Amino acid sequence: MNDDPVVSNKDLYRVIMENDRVRVLAYADMPGDRTTPHRHPDSVMVTLSGFRRRLSADGRDIDVELAAGEVRWLDAQEHSGENIGDTECRTIFVELKEPKPAGTDGTARLGPTLS
Amino acid sequence: MNDDPVVSNKDLYRVIMENDRVRVLAYADMPGDRTTPHRHPDSVMVTLSGFRRRLSADGRDIDVELAAGEVRWLDAQEHSGENIGDTECRTIFVELKEPKPAGTDGTARLGPTLS
Repeated sequence: MNDDPVVSNKDLYRVIMENDRVRVLAYADMPGDRTTPHRHPDSVMVTLSGFRRRLSADGRDIDVELAAGEVRWLDAQEHSGENIGDTECRTIFVELKEPKPAGTDGTARLGPTLS
Repeated sequence: MNDDPVVSNKDLYRVIMENDRVRVLAYADMPGDRTTPHRHPDSVMVTLSGFRRRLSADGRDIDVELAAGEVRWLDAQEHSGENIGDTECRTIFVELKEPKPAGTDGTARLGPTLS
C-alpha cells in the first residue's frame, strides 16, 4: 500500500510546490472527513484555518485544536485523521526531503509538537 | 553587521519555532515599512495576508504581489524589502538549517520563486 497521502488520500492532499529540498502539500477537508493511514516525513505545518482534528496511530488518539496562522513541527510519523470540528480544515505541510541529521532523536510523537 | 533579520530587523521578524532542522519566522509589517538588508537561508514562505512588496538587492528591484495562503520557495539570498501596498503584510518563513545538498544549483534569484 502506498502511504504517501497525495496517493492514498488524493482528494484531500495535493502537492503545491516541490524542489530538491522540500515538497509542500495543501490539505483541505470538511467536518466529518477522515483520512486513511498515511505517512508524513519531518514537516512544518502552517494552519490556514482553525480546526479540530482527531489523530490516530497504533491504537492511540489525540485531539488537536488550532487557530488559523499557527505553526507546528510534525515529527515523521504515520497516522490517520478525522475532522471532528464544525469548520473546514486547511493546512500547509512543508515536508523536508533530506534525511534527518545523524545523532538527532529518533523518537516521534503522534501529532504536532505543541511548542 | 549581523544580517540575521531577527537581529537587524527585530521589530518586524520574530522566531516562532525552532529545532535542529528548521527555524520558523513570523514577519509582520504595515504599509510603508522597510527592512534593512538581511539574509535568508533557503526558505519556504507561506503568506498569511495578501501584500505588495518591493525587494531590492545589488541595485535591482522586483515587485512581488501575493494573496493570502500562497506558498513560495525563497532561494538563500540577501535583500531588503518595502511594503508598497496598502495592507499589512504577514508571512511565515520556514528556514532550512541544513546546508544545501552537494550538486544542487547554487544560483539564487532575487525574491520568491514564482512557481
